Amino acid sequence: MTVFLVGAGPGDPDLLTVRAARLLATADVVVHDALVDEQVLQLAAPGAELIDVGKRPGRGVSQELISTLLVQLGRRHETVVRLKGGDPFVFGRGGEEALTLAAAGVACEVVPGISSVLAAPAAAGVPVTHRGVAASFTVVTGHRAHGGDEPDWSALARAGGTLLVVMGVARRRFIADALIAGGLAASTSVAVSRSATTATVEVWRGRLDELGAAAIESPAVIVIGAVAALDVHAGRIHAVAH
Amino acid sequence: MTVFLVGAGPGDPDLLTVRAARLLATADVVVHDALVDEQVLQLAAPGAELIDVGKRPGRGVSQELISTLLVQLGRRHETVVRLKGGDPFVFGRGGEEALTLAAAGVACEVVPGISSVLAAPAAAGVPVTHRGVAASFTVVTGHRAHGGDEPDWSALARAGGTLLVVMGVARRRFIADALIAGGLAASTSVAVSRSATTATVEVWRGRLDELGAAAIESPAVIVIGAVAALDVHAGRIHAVAH
Repeated sequence: MTVFLVGAGPGDPDLLTVRAARLLATADVVVHDALVDEQVLQLAAPGAELIDVGKRPGRGVSQELISTLLVQLGRRHETVVRLKGGDPFVFGRGGEEALTLAAAGVACEVVPGISSVLAAPAAAGVPVTHRGVAASFTVVTGHRAHGGDEPDWSALARAGGTLLVVMGVARRRFIADALIAGGLAASTSVAVSRSATTATVEVWRGRLDELGAAAIESPAVIVIGAVAALDVHAGRIHAVAH
Repeated sequence: MTVFLVGAGPGDPDLLTVRAARLLATADVVVHDALVDEQVLQLAAPGAELIDVGKRPGRGVSQELISTLLVQLGRRHETVVRLKGGDPFVFGRGGEEALTLAAAGVACEVVPGISSVLAAPAAAGVPVTHRGVAASFTVVTGHRAHGGDEPDWSALARAGGTLLVVMGVARRRFIADALIAGGLAASTSVAVSRSATTATVEVWRGRLDELGAAAIESPAVIVIGAVAALDVHAGRIHAVAH
């Protein structure tokens, strides 16, 4: 009678945690997002019921309905796995589901996962921190609906360190312009990584003032800052910025 | 003849990735940090050589020596696992090791791990993002030696979102004062989480202007911002700030 909010990681089943793989193998029900990979779902117990509650443009299940469903399932089944792409607490809305479950008196445990926000740059050979280059990083959503107000791009431009923008591909020109207006150099290095695993990765690299016109598809993580010039797998520095 | 830079996660062996567990079980040599848990090391193959290169106050192996050692081991053994607490690219200096290996022509693969920076707040019931509360987060080291210059605390205070400070316990009074001077409210919620797993966690909660005098021990992650008032496991909001 426990609902486990489980991070499925970036997509590669090998990047699930040992605990996530074990919970999947014993789950009575798996409630999953659209972003969770088919190979990950195949790890579920043969008799497990799979429920797709993926939110897709124009249709899908509301967050309120998902939370209500989890409460009902948690009262009926021994092991309910709520499987989310990446990590449940990094833009995963796991906090809302946990609060609803707690309010309903249903036991809930959180199992962290590898966030795609960090895995995608790593697959591109970009470390988010690097001695002498970046001692901090900020993760921000470029999608306004998620958190309401527009982020303070000008303060983010001054904060230094690496900037990681998720759900920002559609608004990349606006974001690049706002950061340059806020004081970030037009020549600042940018790497855009589309990756589900460390084996398959598509990377675009360029300068901040080239980002707006770049041909990039969602979903991807946009890395802005001096580390974006690094490709540690190839032992290369792609460009010198700053 | 490959060196795998592997994230060991926050400590709990169940939070290793499936790939990390498999690599450990087949490793010829495991080169590990002081922070890697004993239970994790026990997953290494019975015949594997374990080399502790943990940097501890006043003694330990220099980063240059570690990189040189990895090159030598990578030329001699089939599978070398370089095991790091958390994630290799999040304050893990994995980028430096990968660059040295690439320059020496030794094959290197990065296996991401669950960063303690995110796992520690999760264990405390604090989501780093939460709809309507925080749509971004910044991770910064409080330890000046790591990245050189002092972070721009004043810009971080204005950037909004959640602020996560690692290696900041010793300088917590200075950091709190700098953030308040930069414009963050003295009443801003703070949670400090010491945790290796989701099962064992010590949490201090209070206001930003109480952080300096709080009795807290290293290592811990300091969470500053409105999400720090949440405890989603208990379904509670601890304090109302802002």
